[in-house]
Amino acid sequence: MESLVQRRLTAEFLGTFWLTFGGCGSAILAAAFPGLGIGFAGVSLAFGLTVLTMAYAVGGISGGHFNPAVTLGLWAGRRLCGGKVLPYIAAQVVGAIAAAAALYVIANGQPGFEMGGFAANGYGELSPGLFDMKAALLAEVIATFFFVLIIMRVTAPGAPAGFAPIAIGLALTLIHLVLIPVTNTSVNPARSTGPALFAGGEYIAQLWLFWLAPMVGGVLGALAARGLTVHTPQS
Amino acid sequence: MESLVQRRLTAEFLGTFWLTFGGCGSAILAAAFPGLGIGFAGVSLAFGLTVLTMAYAVGGISGGHFNPAVTLGLWAGRRLCGGKVLPYIAAQVVGAIAAAAALYVIANGQPGFEMGGFAANGYGELSPGLFDMKAALLAEVIATFFFVLIIMRVTAPGAPAGFAPIAIGLALTLIHLVLIPVTNTSVNPARSTGPALFAGGEYIAQLWLFWLAPMVGGVLGALAARGLTVHTPQS
Amino acid sequence: MESLVQRRLTAEFLGTFWLTFGGCGSAILAAAFPGLGIGFAGVSLAFGLTVLTMAYAVGGISGGHFNPAVTLGLWAGRRLCGGKVLPYIAAQVVGAIAAAAALYVIANGQPGFEMGGFAANGYGELSPGLFDMKAALLAEVIATFFFVLIIMRVTAPGAPAGFAPIAIGLALTLIHLVLIPVTNTSVNPARSTGPALFAGGEYIAQLWLFWLAPMVGGVLGALAARGLTVHTPQS
Amino acid sequence: MESLVQRRLTAEFLGTFWLTFGGCGSAILAAAFPGLGIGFAGVSLAFGLTVLTMAYAVGGISGGHFNPAVTLGLWAGRRLCGGKVLPYIAAQVVGAIAAAAALYVIANGQPGFEMGGFAANGYGELSPGLFDMKAALLAEVIATFFFVLIIMRVTAPGAPAGFAPIAIGLALTLIHLVLIPVTNTSVNPARSTGPALFAGGEYIAQLWLFWLAPMVGGVLGALAARGLTVHTPQS
Repeated sequence: MESLVQRRLTAEFLGTFWLTFGGCGSAILAAAFPGLGIGFAGVSLAFGLTVLTMAYAVGGISGGHFNPAVTLGLWAGRRLCGGKVLPYIAAQVVGAIAAAAALYVIANGQPGFEMGGFAANGYGELSPGLFDMKAALLAEVIATFFFVLIIMRVTAPGAPAGFAPIAIGLALTLIHLVLIPVTNTSVNPARSTGPALFAGGEYIAQLWLFWLAPMVGGVLGALAARGLTVHTPQS
Repeated sequence: MESLVQRRLTAEFLGTFWLTFGGCGSAILAAAFPGLGIGFAGVSLAFGLTVLTMAYAVGGISGGHFNPAVTLGLWAGRRLCGGKVLPYIAAQVVGAIAAAAALYVIANGQPGFEMGGFAANGYGELSPGLFDMKAALLAEVIATFFFVLIIMRVTAPGAPAGFAPIAIGLALTLIHLVLIPVTNTSVNPARSTGPALFAGGEYIAQLWLFWLAPMVGGVLGALAARGLTVHTPQS
Repeated sequence: MESLVQRRLTAEFLGTFWLTFGGCGSAILAAAFPGLGIGFAGVSLAFGLTVLTMAYAVGGISGGHFNPAVTLGLWAGRRLCGGKVLPYIAAQVVGAIAAAAALYVIANGQPGFEMGGFAANGYGELSPGLFDMKAALLAEVIATFFFVLIIMRVTAPGAPAGFAPIAIGLALTLIHLVLIPVTNTSVNPARSTGPALFAGGEYIAQLWLFWLAPMVGGVLGALAARGLTVHTPQS
Repeated sequence: MESLVQRRLTAEFLGTFWLTFGGCGSAILAAAFPGLGIGFAGVSLAFGLTVLTMAYAVGGISGGHFNPAVTLGLWAGRRLCGGKVLPYIAAQVVGAIAAAAALYVIANGQPGFEMGGFAANGYGELSPGLFDMKAALLAEVIATFFFVLIIMRVTAPGAPAGFAPIAIGLALTLIHLVLIPVTNTSVNPARSTGPALFAGGEYIAQLWLFWLAPMVGGVLGALAARGLTVHTPQS
């Protein structure tokens, strides 16, 4: 592949494909399998491991964001030049949609398949536990705040080399262990968008929250991480 | 943020917020979700991952205690100057209370929410498995003894760099895998205090045990770790 | 052991024995134990940990493939000379068959043992969730594509030392969390072959898919990894 | 503590206490908690994390065996001088008995407590899945063979520093994921002895198998590891 830009966007496309295919796929295909299903705990582990594995694989190319809230947060935290923000987000959203399409084909191969929520995010009537919009907003903002704060800190100069994908991936697992009942857990607008396009209807109408809350939380988390870090006068 | 002291106390505040939000939040929101809930194993994983992730993120700033028993233990083990003990503990307790408040708002967003134990710790009638006070005391002392012994050793000079948050976080997961039925697992007086203030009544009356036992166990564990470590004459 | 070749093939034999014994063994012996069984999530963890542990143990000897699709992929990715491909695959298949034989003896020690699927892979009537052939093909190709892409990248020069077995093992856990309901998860023709020889009948007739799809996915994943990596003109 | 010998034996005592307290404790107290219990998967994780955490904590002092089969195997593999074998094993057995006593006090604090198997190992009528003696023997030999082979290799000179406790601890988790239904999983004669003394009767009569099979498997695994390793003429 000739260009560095192409390699970076390919990495973000593949990483977000994997995040959505693995995370949402485990929810759609395996969570509720009779008697042996993996439940919310297994889905939480799957989401985290998508990021852990692909951050090791392509983090050195693109930074391994796989998430528009992370990309925007890292820009706010002065880790990313502004020119990369929109291309990264575009590659992430396309990756998530492609993964949802692949999951649709696979899920369709089961007799009696019905779409249902297709692992899309939601609040109110579309929340797994019927949590209202206010709870969903607060939960998504807090979780993305800590997610991006952790990412900023474990990838900062001086952090122990090689451990960042473990901390970041398992932070995503932790967030899912807490929040699947509330919103099905987003903290990632691209991951929310892919399945919502297939679930359709009200799921698309609620997408605004899963863009707004993670973006706000991510930017605040990045600013907090900057506040925690000592900076030399020039920086 | 100007001051090193402020940065340290902010780190302890944020870390203990995350520990309580993630650990108690997983118990309140996700443990008993019908058919797909994460159970005690998922809650155990969540508690451990809160410490693993925030120890990577802010351990370099404050040491990453997030727990008064750890702070007191590390002081007894001569790893922390005495002047830091009370400010650290104050920041931890405030963080845990703030997290419990955030969880209260989110949990309230579910129709038909009832407070119940709100993930507070307890013994006797308030123990998940109705274990009596003697069992609760012994279990909490032993578990905190090993928790602080492990922390002391994996952060000692010469320990392999970068692995301490994995060992410490997964030690907390292990402790929860064993003791949730006995006391709902404390080993952390701050984590016990936050939810108890919301659960109220008898939960507050039992808080003494979840301050006393972890503090005793933590100090003993730190002394044992010192005994295991070779010291040059000066130290 | 005199010869380097012998040591390499012994390592691949042992690693694939362990993968099949641990992964398929957990499925056969422990997944559906009444009330306390480990379910698909436990089986997923077991498969991943077989690779994580033996890659640490013998990865330095043979590379730690334990999987014909990985061996073929790494050859396509120019990481392995062509002369090793067939001997490696032979050692892997023999290891998987030996492990299935050991599991057969152990499983037979339970009163009322019935063979059933014996953790073999399948589609259509033999898929745990009755997924059709098209879904099985697509799922296995995608999963092996990412599995080998991750392997290629985390073992590339410049990747952080020591972390590859974690990334690779947990990638296999992730893949199982998603795909056990679809095909019982192969991504590994040797692992598919061992149990199928014992399950017999239609399971053997379906083996072609679990050789074809992982091989195709593995080669494509290796080529994609090469495309993502910058090469100097000579390479 | 004055003496290096004392520090080593204390480390083995504490490590085997933690292994038995955490592993058997999770089985006795938490595995079958109604509706929320951790099951065999949670117990498997607990056993592995006891070794992972204490190997990080005291591995640098004693080597972190916590298991007579590991101690004997490492002696057979020329990693341990013969004079340490019996003192190490004695410290391990005392640690396991002390942990079983602590668990007995805690478990007794629950109303209606009945001893039952107390997490002891067994075959035939005492096997969780009623597996016969032949299956138990084969399973324990194979599992300990690989356990000690992995330990030998990941602690060999040249292995990546710091990762051994992860590989070893998670190998123990994996072994439990497979074998709890067969024998309740020993691979460790000390862990078998502690609970059996409390469970009494037939459990004590069956202890011979859980000394014999792990010892045989451990020695064979160490010899296999030596065969896999290149030695210079002098060694």
